[in-house]
Amino acid sequence: MKQSTIGHETPQVTARDKVTGVALYGGDLKMPGMLHLKVLRSPHAHARIVRIDTEAARALPGVHLVLTGEDTPERLSGVMHKQHRILATGKVRFIGEEVVAVAAVDEETARDALDLIHVEYEELPAVLNPDHALMQGTIEVHQGTGNIAHEYDICQGDVEKAFETAAAVYEATYETHSQYPGYLEPMATVAWMGANDRLNVWTPSQMPFLQRMRFAEALDRPVSTIRIIQATTGGGFGGKTVEECNSLICAWVATKTRRPVRFLNSRLDDFQGARASVPERIWLKMGVNAEGIIVAKDVRIIAECGAYAGLAPEVLQVSVMRSDNMHRTLKNVRSHATLVYTNCPPRGAFRGFGGTQMTFCVSSHLSVLADKIGMDPIDLHTLNAVRSGDVTVHGFEVGSSGLSECLAQVRTAMNWDEKRRRPKGAGAKRRGIGMGAAIHVSGNRAMGNWDGSTIALKINPDGRVMLYTGEADIGQGANTMLAQICSHELSIPIDHVTVMPLDTDSSPYGLGSVASRVTVNGGMAAIKASKEALGKLLALAADKLGVPESELMFQNGEVISESAGATGAERARISYGDLARMHIYRHGGEGLQVTATYDPPTVMANSQQYGNVAPAYSFAAQGVEVEVDVETGKVSIVDTYISDDCGKALNPLAVHGQSCGAVTQGIGWTLYEQLHYQDCRLMNGNFADYTMPTADSIPEIRSGIVESNDPNGPYGAKGASETAIVPGAGAIANAVYDAVGVRINSLPITPEKVLAGLAELAKFKVIETEPEHAGI
Amino acid sequence: MKQSTIGHETPQVTARDKVTGVALYGGDLKMPGMLHLKVLRSPHAHARIVRIDTEAARALPGVHLVLTGEDTPERLSGVMHKQHRILATGKVRFIGEEVVAVAAVDEETARDALDLIHVEYEELPAVLNPDHALMQGTIEVHQGTGNIAHEYDICQGDVEKAFETAAAVYEATYETHSQYPGYLEPMATVAWMGANDRLNVWTPSQMPFLQRMRFAEALDRPVSTIRIIQATTGGGFGGKTVEECNSLICAWVATKTRRPVRFLNSRLDDFQGARASVPERIWLKMGVNAEGIIVAKDVRIIAECGAYAGLAPEVLQVSVMRSDNMHRTLKNVRSHATLVYTNCPPRGAFRGFGGTQMTFCVSSHLSVLADKIGMDPIDLHTLNAVRSGDVTVHGFEVGSSGLSECLAQVRTAMNWDEKRRRPKGAGAKRRGIGMGAAIHVSGNRAMGNWDGSTIALKINPDGRVMLYTGEADIGQGANTMLAQICSHELSIPIDHVTVMPLDTDSSPYGLGSVASRVTVNGGMAAIKASKEALGKLLALAADKLGVPESELMFQNGEVISESAGATGAERARISYGDLARMHIYRHGGEGLQVTATYDPPTVMANSQQYGNVAPAYSFAAQGVEVEVDVETGKVSIVDTYISDDCGKALNPLAVHGQSCGAVTQGIGWTLYEQLHYQDCRLMNGNFADYTMPTADSIPEIRSGIVESNDPNGPYGAKGASETAIVPGAGAIANAVYDAVGVRINSLPITPEKVLAGLAELAKFKVIETEPEHAGI
Repeated sequence: MKQSTIGHETPQVTARDKVTGVALYGGDLKMPGMLHLKVLRSPHAHARIVRIDTEAARALPGVHLVLTGEDTPERLSGVMHKQHRILATGKVRFIGEEVVAVAAVDEETARDALDLIHVEYEELPAVLNPDHALMQGTIEVHQGTGNIAHEYDICQGDVEKAFETAAAVYEATYETHSQYPGYLEPMATVAWMGANDRLNVWTPSQMPFLQRMRFAEALDRPVSTIRIIQATTGGGFGGKTVEECNSLICAWVATKTRRPVRFLNSRLDDFQGARASVPERIWLKMGVNAEGIIVAKDVRIIAECGAYAGLAPEVLQVSVMRSDNMHRTLKNVRSHATLVYTNCPPRGAFRGFGGTQMTFCVSSHLSVLADKIGMDPIDLHTLNAVRSGDVTVHGFEVGSSGLSECLAQVRTAMNWDEKRRRPKGAGAKRRGIGMGAAIHVSGNRAMGNWDGSTIALKINPDGRVMLYTGEADIGQGANTMLAQICSHELSIPIDHVTVMPLDTDSSPYGLGSVASRVTVNGGMAAIKASKEALGKLLALAADKLGVPESELMFQNGEVISESAGATGAERARISYGDLARMHIYRHGGEGLQVTATYDPPTVMANSQQYGNVAPAYSFAAQGVEVEVDVETGKVSIVDTYISDDCGKALNPLAVHGQSCGAVTQGIGWTLYEQLHYQDCRLMNGNFADYTMPTADSIPEIRSGIVESNDPNGPYGAKGASETAIVPGAGAIANAVYDAVGVRINSLPITPEKVLAGLAELAKFKVIETEPEHAGI
Repeated sequence: MKQSTIGHETPQVTARDKVTGVALYGGDLKMPGMLHLKVLRSPHAHARIVRIDTEAARALPGVHLVLTGEDTPERLSGVMHKQHRILATGKVRFIGEEVVAVAAVDEETARDALDLIHVEYEELPAVLNPDHALMQGTIEVHQGTGNIAHEYDICQGDVEKAFETAAAVYEATYETHSQYPGYLEPMATVAWMGANDRLNVWTPSQMPFLQRMRFAEALDRPVSTIRIIQATTGGGFGGKTVEECNSLICAWVATKTRRPVRFLNSRLDDFQGARASVPERIWLKMGVNAEGIIVAKDVRIIAECGAYAGLAPEVLQVSVMRSDNMHRTLKNVRSHATLVYTNCPPRGAFRGFGGTQMTFCVSSHLSVLADKIGMDPIDLHTLNAVRSGDVTVHGFEVGSSGLSECLAQVRTAMNWDEKRRRPKGAGAKRRGIGMGAAIHVSGNRAMGNWDGSTIALKINPDGRVMLYTGEADIGQGANTMLAQICSHELSIPIDHVTVMPLDTDSSPYGLGSVASRVTVNGGMAAIKASKEALGKLLALAADKLGVPESELMFQNGEVISESAGATGAERARISYGDLARMHIYRHGGEGLQVTATYDPPTVMANSQQYGNVAPAYSFAAQGVEVEVDVETGKVSIVDTYISDDCGKALNPLAVHGQSCGAVTQGIGWTLYEQLHYQDCRLMNGNFADYTMPTADSIPEIRSGIVESNDPNGPYGAKGASETAIVPGAGAIANAVYDAVGVRINSLPITPEKVLAGLAELAKFKVIETEPEHAGI
């Protein structure tokens, strides 16, 4: 057999089906008699629904069903706050909120029917933004909340006292904005009622089992009567979790039509319906002593969840404290954070999950503080960097940290020291260099007191393995990782392992692809399950070959006994396939199937958010070189290097892919992508006006891997799909500052802001503009 | 909750989906881009394929693919004898054999394409029947076989010596014929290549896992790359086992088209392609002593398997020895049986599985012998009837036998003694009464050394249960039985148990619905799995409630502690749903799933077919009253009573249903249904000419149940779906004899045979024909 793929560049096991068009995404499933669903969305940010006239729509030939909020189950659902019905009822709370659903024979008819629906609204004053939300006497988005969805107030150490020991203190306020998940595949769902009155839902999802639980709540029906089959998922980035509503509405309508229903989000639907990331205004104060030790951090956050809370409280919890854990030195921290309702669209989970917002501020801050004490920022980061074995200020037990190594890689790869020292030039185009660093979790004991993963393996009578999991491959390569591990442990070719389609009816219970948890938790479960399967194979082989288990070895899908050579020249051997058949066809036999669960040795955070919530922590550092055009304000990324401490790169190809994708998404957030709201109305819900970076705005992304070998991860591995998005914004802001001396604390870093900053600078000093090609 | 359904009339859990049209049968699945398959069948019983010209067919617009035997994998496949390729190659061996397959955009085009295919054959002499097959120098169907597919030669005791002790000996030769399975749903399959290059096959099947194994062999591809999903199955009766070719051809073509393919048998296709039952010519000699004890039995069988052996060797093995085991007295038996190839269509498995053929002879024989010694045949049967605890001549360890009770029920229900004594009348219509008795297995350790069954249960967070099994509900009620048991054991309503669709990808390995094995083996596994699940629930509840497990009880989906009442008036209680959630959301948690296998304490038969092959044995007796029209020869069933010893009627409604169906099928075989072959050509492959009994030819079937409480069965139950087909033919033949004195040993009992028999009789005595209404 080929050698183990662990540690080797391995094409994704899902790739062939994707490139040959065999893979079926959410919208690809077609069923006989299938109806098509469209929803009418609220045109008002806040209004009372007075009357809905659906008569003309119902009368349109081809229309099967027109449903309003009154038809939805009365039970309220939601992640932490139960405040949502499937369609708006009584009030609409944001522009784009789903008000009426139409199922018709085709999409065109459904769309035509929407035009025939007349909704009479009584407009209410809208809560436009967090400041507005928190003003005395402002109308409430949800009654009795004072527009406050959630608050955090945590403190460790003595912040005030610690600041007294600081050689330099810096405080600033940062603004971060919402980013649209921007997956290639907009949400699309097909749902139908099947045998036994069970609801079947074919939908892309990062967490089918939790989605099933949420459907049960929202549809008010027993969870076991719902089946979710994960469609091939064309990216998630947090947008395909338990907040998204396309699948929920489609599932509910299917219970009414008794015919299959497809709900395909147009890109505008998806912009309006998807949960973008949580915008936060962060006031940050940090101090370092003369040696560069970070002595204290004080933070206040106002974050906006929009009209419904969803996962935003969990996101904010991460902003509040996670970045602190990358500094072993930091013992005094205080955070106060408020999550605020507005009548803007709801925001929620997004790759990086709140870490990105705060790390932008921290990286910017540390660069300023380094300057203040005359220290190189990489040195400052390295000095404070958490190390393997540390227990952090919030109780993270860091089994492995390659943060310092990541920083060192960046220093070398970016030619940091030389570029820091070089003159910035005086032409229109100035170059600057900056860096940032980040921590992320690999798993998070936050979804109830369980963060485990279960893998079931079936050894078929041909010796090949079927692997069942409730975790979800959303494009990131989870299935490849699991197949690699199983193939490695059992010593069989990787294409002899099939990761079975995720189906809540047949897969073991699992939490899914969130919190970068799958490699550690799923991977460890895969090792455990493989070892159990191997144990059964060896026991059978020992019995069959008449050789003690201790004298058996296994290789290339066979169990081999060296010692049975006594009878002849050949070694005794028996294939897994024969053993699997033997496992069935004997007295007391049965199909060879094993199930194993790995639950990491973590704890839930306490009310002060203290606790070792993850089995492992990933780290990353990023260096960025920018070119700033001082005439246009345009910032271009000239070069970037991301170093990811993923513990052990089980598949360097996949780690590199994740790093590149994350860096690109980070660049997009920092420079290009901005959801424009005007009085809570999204003004650019399309890819022409919402400008994700295209190939010409992204340099070749260079990436490095640090293998810190985590004691809790499979072969030392940690999660590698989110960390690399976290350090980018700060690195870019620092590079811009390095280039032109303009510190921009408000994202995105647009040409306008750069020019405004330059203008502000010009009030104090004359910018030398050299003629181009000055050196020639 | 409602009380347990065990022992109570329980509607089938599959019924609602079937009557509302939700259930999808083989042909109901429609997929986008689906092609339609038709096959060209051989018009010759035996011919060499010289040339196949498919050019014109390929050129027909809409035709996607035309395939011949040369395109099929070279590997030969089959049950015991490997002799079959997917399409005929080189030679055709029966009329109807599949020669060319066409996949086209619709059925009409595919049919049209068949007309454009020219196959040049070189006709060979056909082997027309078993006598012809065994003639010296006859051409061979399969070279080197001498046309003998299989032989049995077994002997227990000393037959010759035993015959010497007989007071009466009778020998006769019987002819039995083929019966078409006659399921409502002709075979229909949809197959497609899916993700990971796996072959998906949607097909009705009695044994999806063994079918998968067979596909792997025939398609020469790894078994794990094949997925069989059991479509709702509209009856099987042995016709949807590993012999049928509709699904195999469809599956194979799907590997070539890369588009979904549907193959829907027309009824003619199905008549030509299905395996009818094995026709046997049986020479039988039995002797009884003066007391009525059966002292010896000698039998010679020539059976015809047609062109391919399939399961016919196994069928013949049953004919050879099973009926012997219903007589505790019988110690001296000898059987020689030869299975013969002819160029007729292949025959194979059929409800009753060879027992029906031999029991017709034995019941006829015992009636004659009883007459000879002046004994009532029920008395004779009862005297010899096997009893609980007996070990029979072939090693069957009979844990329970209610055969005597069945016979007693028949005696009473039929008003036997009075009707036996009454004058037969002398009008045109003469009434007569007859009976037969039967034994059948509940399971059979014959498919490799395993006859076990595995059940997996998942307890969902709503407390409801999903039950996974590799056994197959083919309409007989297996799913209902399993749901009843699980609901009973766990004390939850039956509709809180969903038996999940059978899918080789997600169901545990299982052998399927053959040999009436599911109630005992599947049922015992369901008890075992339920108890394991309950154990987990109780352990969790003990932990949660702080009460020792011994003080807990369970009821209606809750675990209840009486003793925790100390804290207040109320008893402590916790629902299964809460426990299932708790099983996940805690340290070391996971989804609550258990798997249990029951493998019965049986052995494989030795070369003399000796051994206790089944965990339990079912018995039945049937009484029949006929009216024979001596002018037309027509035999009408006036009344019948079937008594079935199913151990324990878990669901009397289902047992009655199976009894009625089996009796009807037995009547059909005995009186009406006959596959007419002319030079090996089926002449009546349609329901107009192949006359299955309709409602007007079947009386109200009365049925009784004997509960012998088998020690190995679930709550004492045994299989109840086949036994009742076995005694009918003998009972009817005996009743005809009783009515008009004509003994017919050749099935079916047609008016022509009756008239011929009457004419034969008339040579010896004058039949008195009274005027009608003589009594008035």
